[in-house]
Amino acid sequence: MPRFPQTADRIQHLEGSVFEKFREKMKAQGDKLVRLHIGDTYLQPVYSLPINSSFMEQHRMFHRYCHTYGIDRIRKALVTKLQEDNHLPVSVDNILLTSGATNALSIAVHTLVNPGEDVLVLTPAWPFFFGMVNMAGAKVIEVPFYTRLFHNPDFSISEYLARYLTPQTVAIYVNTPNNPSGKVLDAQQLQQIGEFARQHRLWIISDEAYDGLTYDGRPHISIGQLPGLFDQTLTVFTFSKIFMFAGLRLGYLVASSEMIHACNRTLVHQLYSPSTLAQYMMIDPIQTRHQWMPRVQRHYQELRDRFIHGLEISVPVPEGTYFIFFSLKPFLNGRDYWQLFHQLLENGVSVAPGQDFGRDFQDYVRLCFTGEPPERLQIAIDRLNRFFKTLC
Amino acid sequence: MPRFPQTADRIQHLEGSVFEKFREKMKAQGDKLVRLHIGDTYLQPVYSLPINSSFMEQHRMFHRYCHTYGIDRIRKALVTKLQEDNHLPVSVDNILLTSGATNALSIAVHTLVNPGEDVLVLTPAWPFFFGMVNMAGAKVIEVPFYTRLFHNPDFSISEYLARYLTPQTVAIYVNTPNNPSGKVLDAQQLQQIGEFARQHRLWIISDEAYDGLTYDGRPHISIGQLPGLFDQTLTVFTFSKIFMFAGLRLGYLVASSEMIHACNRTLVHQLYSPSTLAQYMMIDPIQTRHQWMPRVQRHYQELRDRFIHGLEISVPVPEGTYFIFFSLKPFLNGRDYWQLFHQLLENGVSVAPGQDFGRDFQDYVRLCFTGEPPERLQIAIDRLNRFFKTLC
Repeated sequence: MPRFPQTADRIQHLEGSVFEKFREKMKAQGDKLVRLHIGDTYLQPVYSLPINSSFMEQHRMFHRYCHTYGIDRIRKALVTKLQEDNHLPVSVDNILLTSGATNALSIAVHTLVNPGEDVLVLTPAWPFFFGMVNMAGAKVIEVPFYTRLFHNPDFSISEYLARYLTPQTVAIYVNTPNNPSGKVLDAQQLQQIGEFARQHRLWIISDEAYDGLTYDGRPHISIGQLPGLFDQTLTVFTFSKIFMFAGLRLGYLVASSEMIHACNRTLVHQLYSPSTLAQYMMIDPIQTRHQWMPRVQRHYQELRDRFIHGLEISVPVPEGTYFIFFSLKPFLNGRDYWQLFHQLLENGVSVAPGQDFGRDFQDYVRLCFTGEPPERLQIAIDRLNRFFKTLC
Repeated sequence: MPRFPQTADRIQHLEGSVFEKFREKMKAQGDKLVRLHIGDTYLQPVYSLPINSSFMEQHRMFHRYCHTYGIDRIRKALVTKLQEDNHLPVSVDNILLTSGATNALSIAVHTLVNPGEDVLVLTPAWPFFFGMVNMAGAKVIEVPFYTRLFHNPDFSISEYLARYLTPQTVAIYVNTPNNPSGKVLDAQQLQQIGEFARQHRLWIISDEAYDGLTYDGRPHISIGQLPGLFDQTLTVFTFSKIFMFAGLRLGYLVASSEMIHACNRTLVHQLYSPSTLAQYMMIDPIQTRHQWMPRVQRHYQELRDRFIHGLEISVPVPEGTYFIFFSLKPFLNGRDYWQLFHQLLENGVSVAPGQDFGRDFQDYVRLCFTGEPPERLQIAIDRLNRFFKTLC
C-alpha cells in the first residue's frame, strides 16, 4: 500500500511535462534559445478582448461559480459555431465547457474507459493522452497511422485497424488536424475510421484541438458530422490554438446529451465548474471569428511556407496544426539520436523528442513554427541549416 | 465492457452537481427564490483587480501556457503568504497551482490512493470528495466527527479514529474550517489527528479551502505546520472563498517538493497547466491581503450573527466558513425529511440536503449566509422563521 512516503501505483510510470527533463539545459541558454519545442503562438490574441474597466459591470456574476455545464451565453454562441463551422447537429445540451482540451480529454477517458480495457490510439499522438489512459487503469494500443498517410493516402484503413483490435478495445482516439504530424484527415479516411468504430461499437474520442488550423484551403472535417456517428463520438475543442489563448485554459466537449450528462459527473469531480471569467471573455471572439480567423490562418500558412522553404532539408509539409514532424534517421550516420537532440539544443534550437508521440517515432523530432516571432523563427532556420550541414 | 452506448463503471454511481436534481424546481421560482444552497459570496472582489487596459501590456505572456507548476511570481507571493499566515515551512518548490480546490483535491487523491484502498473521511464532508475517492477505485470510510465536537470538544480523537482504521487505509481527509458544520479545529485536536496519521503512516489530505474564514478571533491552524507533519500532508487552498473569486477557478496545493513533483504528473494529465491569466490576476490581491481580508471577515461575521440571532430556532454557531448546518429532526414530528425540504423550497428558500455530506446527516440541512446580499438574507430569515413556526 502506498502509505507515506509512497505514492499510488498509477503515477509511478507517468511522465510529467515532456519538457521537464530539458528544463535546466534550456534555462541555461536563456534568451539565446529559440524555442520550437512547445505548441503555442507568439501572437497575442488578435481579436478584441474584454479586459477593460467595463467588464466587471457588464458581467456582474464573473466572480461566482457558474452552472457546472458552462454559462448559457457561451454555449449558445458555440451552438452556432459548431453548426456553421463543424456541421455538427448540436443544441446547448450537447456542449460541456472544460478547462482546456486536456481537461476535456481526461474527462472523456475517465467517463468511457474501465481499468483493464484497451484504447486504440492512432499515432503519432499527443503525449499526454497515453498517460490519461494509463491513469484510468486502461491500456493504450498504438496504431502507427498519420505519417504513413503522407506516402500512401489510399491504404485500406478498416483492414489495417482491424489488425490492432482486441476483445478489450472500447474506444479509438482520433486527432485531426494531427499533432505532431500536421496531417489533416479527409472525409473518406474519416468515413473508414467511423465505419470501423461503428462495426465494433467503439467510442470515438475525436481530438480537434487544431480545429480551424488547416492550410491550402483544406477543410477540417469533424468525424461526428458524418452520417450516424454523432452519438458515438466525443469531440474535443479548445480556445488554446486558433483562439491564441492557451493561458486561459478553456475548452469544450461535444457529444450526445446523455454523454454530456455523464461527462459532467466526471467534470464536477475534477474541476467542479469551468471558469466563469474565462467563458465571458470568449463569447465575443466566438461571434466575431469570421473577421479575424482567416487572417491568423494566412499568417500561420506564411510561417509554415517560410519554414519549409527556408529549411535546406526536405520534410513532410504539414496540412494543418503548427508543427513540422520528421525523422532524424537520415542524419544519424551511426550517431545516437539523443546526441543530435542535445547538440541541437546546444546550437540554440529546442525541439520536442519524437518518442513522446509514440513508440514508432523514436527517431523523430517535432518543431513548432508559430511559437516564436518571424525574426526569431528565421534565426532558428539558419541554425537548423548550419546544424544539418555539419551532419552531412 | 462499456462499449457504445455504455459508460465506464466508475461513473455509474457518481452523483453530478448536488443541486442538479432541484434545478428545475429552483428555476421555476425565478428571482423570488433566496438561494442559500450554494457556497458562494454575493460580494464582488473587494480588492483592486487588474482587469484594465494595461493588463495585457504588463503581462505580455498572459495568453500563453505557463510552467505546469505555475508562474514564479505567484508561487513567490504564496511562499510569503504561507509562511506568514499558515506558518508552513515552504519554498517555491512546495507549491503547485491548480484549477481551484476541487482540482487540487482530485490531483491529491489520484496521486496517493490505489484502487481497493481506503480513505478515512471525517464527516460531515464536502460532497464531491466521496466521489473523487470512488473515481480512483478506492473506498471512503466515513467517520462522523465535526458535529460531535460542538457538544464534546475533548473526546479522545486518537482512540475514536482507531475504531475506523482498516488494513487498507492509506489516507485521512481533514477539513478545517469545516464545510458544512462551520467547525474550526484547534491545535490540540489537530495534534491528535496528526499523531494518529503518523502512527499509522497515513497521508493527510488537508482541505483548507476556508482558510482565512474564521470568526471571533479564532485562528485557522494548518495541520502541516505542526511538528513533523509537513512531509506527510497535502494541503489544499483556493481563491474561491476568502478571495471571493470562485469564477476564476484557481487554487493551490502545498506539500513536500517530492510530492509536488508527483502531483504535477497527475496535473498535466487532468489540466496540462494552470491558467496563466488567472495567476497574473491574483498576485497583487495576495500581496495586499492584510488590507482587505479583515474587512471581509468582519462583514461575514456580521452576516453570521445577523442570521443566527434572526433565526427563532436554535442552531450550532459556526466558528468559520459561511455555513449553518443543523438537523431538521426536531421539526419533523412524523413528517418526511424530503417533504420539509421541498416545502422549504416552495416557501422561497433553497438549502443543501444533509445526506450529501455523509451518511449520518440525512436529516440535516446546510445554509449559506454569504451567497445573497444582506437584504435578501433578511427575507430568507423571515421565511425560515414563518416556516419553522408552522411546524411546531
